[in-house]
Amino acid sequence: MNLEALTDDDVDLSHHGDAEVGDGLRDFAVNVRGATPPAWLADRIRDSIAHLAAYPDPAPARRAVARRHGRAPDEVLLTAGAAEAFVLLARVLEPRRAVVVHPQFTEPEAALRAAGHPVERVLLGKDFAFDPAAIPADADLVVIGNPTNPTSVLHPAAALASLARPGRTVVIDEAFMDCVPGEPESLAGRLPTGFVVVRSLTKTWGLAGLRAGYLLTAPDLVTRLAEAQPLWAVSTPALVAIEACSSPEAVAEAGAWAVAMGAERDRLAAELTRRGLYVVPGASASFLCLRVPDALGIRALLRQRGFAVRRGDTFPGLGSDWLRIAVRDRDANDELLEALGDLGI
Amino acid sequence: MNLEALTDDDVDLSHHGDAEVGDGLRDFAVNVRGATPPAWLADRIRDSIAHLAAYPDPAPARRAVARRHGRAPDEVLLTAGAAEAFVLLARVLEPRRAVVVHPQFTEPEAALRAAGHPVERVLLGKDFAFDPAAIPADADLVVIGNPTNPTSVLHPAAALASLARPGRTVVIDEAFMDCVPGEPESLAGRLPTGFVVVRSLTKTWGLAGLRAGYLLTAPDLVTRLAEAQPLWAVSTPALVAIEACSSPEAVAEAGAWAVAMGAERDRLAAELTRRGLYVVPGASASFLCLRVPDALGIRALLRQRGFAVRRGDTFPGLGSDWLRIAVRDRDANDELLEALGDLGI
Repeated sequence: MNLEALTDDDVDLSHHGDAEVGDGLRDFAVNVRGATPPAWLADRIRDSIAHLAAYPDPAPARRAVARRHGRAPDEVLLTAGAAEAFVLLARVLEPRRAVVVHPQFTEPEAALRAAGHPVERVLLGKDFAFDPAAIPADADLVVIGNPTNPTSVLHPAAALASLARPGRTVVIDEAFMDCVPGEPESLAGRLPTGFVVVRSLTKTWGLAGLRAGYLLTAPDLVTRLAEAQPLWAVSTPALVAIEACSSPEAVAEAGAWAVAMGAERDRLAAELTRRGLYVVPGASASFLCLRVPDALGIRALLRQRGFAVRRGDTFPGLGSDWLRIAVRDRDANDELLEALGDLGI
Repeated sequence: MNLEALTDDDVDLSHHGDAEVGDGLRDFAVNVRGATPPAWLADRIRDSIAHLAAYPDPAPARRAVARRHGRAPDEVLLTAGAAEAFVLLARVLEPRRAVVVHPQFTEPEAALRAAGHPVERVLLGKDFAFDPAAIPADADLVVIGNPTNPTSVLHPAAALASLARPGRTVVIDEAFMDCVPGEPESLAGRLPTGFVVVRSLTKTWGLAGLRAGYLLTAPDLVTRLAEAQPLWAVSTPALVAIEACSSPEAVAEAGAWAVAMGAERDRLAAELTRRGLYVVPGASASFLCLRVPDALGIRALLRQRGFAVRRGDTFPGLGSDWLRIAVRDRDANDELLEALGDLGI
């Protein structure tokens, strides 16, 4: 693990997978579950369209999220996607020493920099395992993903909880935690003092276009973040979706999907490993991170063959030998494997 | 016109009409057109729900807004409602002397204060007409509504355009401008140097729950505001609505509604005036502002009879003798008139 103090944008933090798709390409670049939202959820959202003349009322969705995680409603802030949560945190917190653990989703660092905060990067080392000792003792803001985008690595809850310090805020990006059956390493239900857990409905429920997410933290910080949030920040359709996806039935449905997705992910990882690629071990989310020589060249050839995969070089701590690929259904994954085979992989 | 430098929150700027409705009350408090969104628009929005797995792409809606106002796409920033526009402006602009012209929608001042900017109020005088001479010469940020919520007064475009000064930003809140047939006093299509025009789809199209709005200004300011905006800030359903409502057919439909609404508004205003109430003259939006002794008492009695009207005392520059009432259809307005008659008005 290395500690780097970088103030220049050495990589393009604003590059995201959605910029890699289009042109009729098969999408292995964006980490959103396919064939979503499911019909029952789409119907619930459609039903809300008849009631759009009223301003949004977040109270029912807020209560539903609180119940789903065993928290109090005043520990919940609903947001227009996880991206808004990172902007609000960057605006409200006043860190003296902010540390972002990389590789990870680039928006938290981008939001901190946009708000004028210097950011130090802790780069994870071998297999991207997390060692709490690498975090500077006087860091008063630490941001880390779990499971991590783009590595798919799941860190132990105990290691993350050990980061708690008086005066320190620890932000855990759990946008992909519902990929993990039972969510044993989630801190949403425990919420140690000073912790903020950011969640998203985007990936598992196929709601990237709706802007629906939330965070969990202490009530006083929820209040301060809410004051920085625009009035009526979350739309009625997004509120309906948040409430619906927080029901015990929806959580069970997501859990069943996570089990099936995980089995297919592990099959895909095993096949790629068998072919001699290095796949980051312990993958726990709905994507795989792999190292392959001349990854950008491979990516370009795959695009010629109709497949979009996510370049890894725009993630701090990865480089031009890395790719991230979303786990699709077995048939689609086999097509990607076949295309890789055509390239001699 | 008086100039007041107020740093205390002497009124509750966060009070809005949506807090006055509910409990089965007939809604004359919220300025959103009834029986909306229309079926064709609701259908368009519903159709977008099947495509929510993709991240939002604002480009088509941005082009449509630009065409609708005769601007270039890089002069357009789409926002999650006008409320987000005011938060972004407050965050990005660094005024040395910010002036807000009251009475007006309270969110712009609230957003400026939340961002740490002192705000001076210019209170309009007789009939709430606007005199540009009342704006301090060194004000480098001026915010004014046109037509103004809650007074319904439409200011001449020339008077507003005369506020242009080197180094000054003038923000015109045109959230209700589509209530004015032909929009002759709009500055959206002219956009003098240093001007920002904020627009909303909420009121005319019944989309308060969707969070759909935009602003028009110079490309360099659009860029700076966009950098302060969360990634993917406007949802796909909202983008679909913005694009749909910017078509020539939709603008014509809104124009026809504005003509009909205006006739009913003028009838209602004449009847209230005949009964001896002072109705702010020249009403041009979808609501009336009236002075009535013991307005809060009248409001309470109306609530007992099943009617919600908007209290005026939370608007700086009004007071406890003021009410705002939304213009509904003739039958509904007659019911309100009858209820007022029961109270001796």
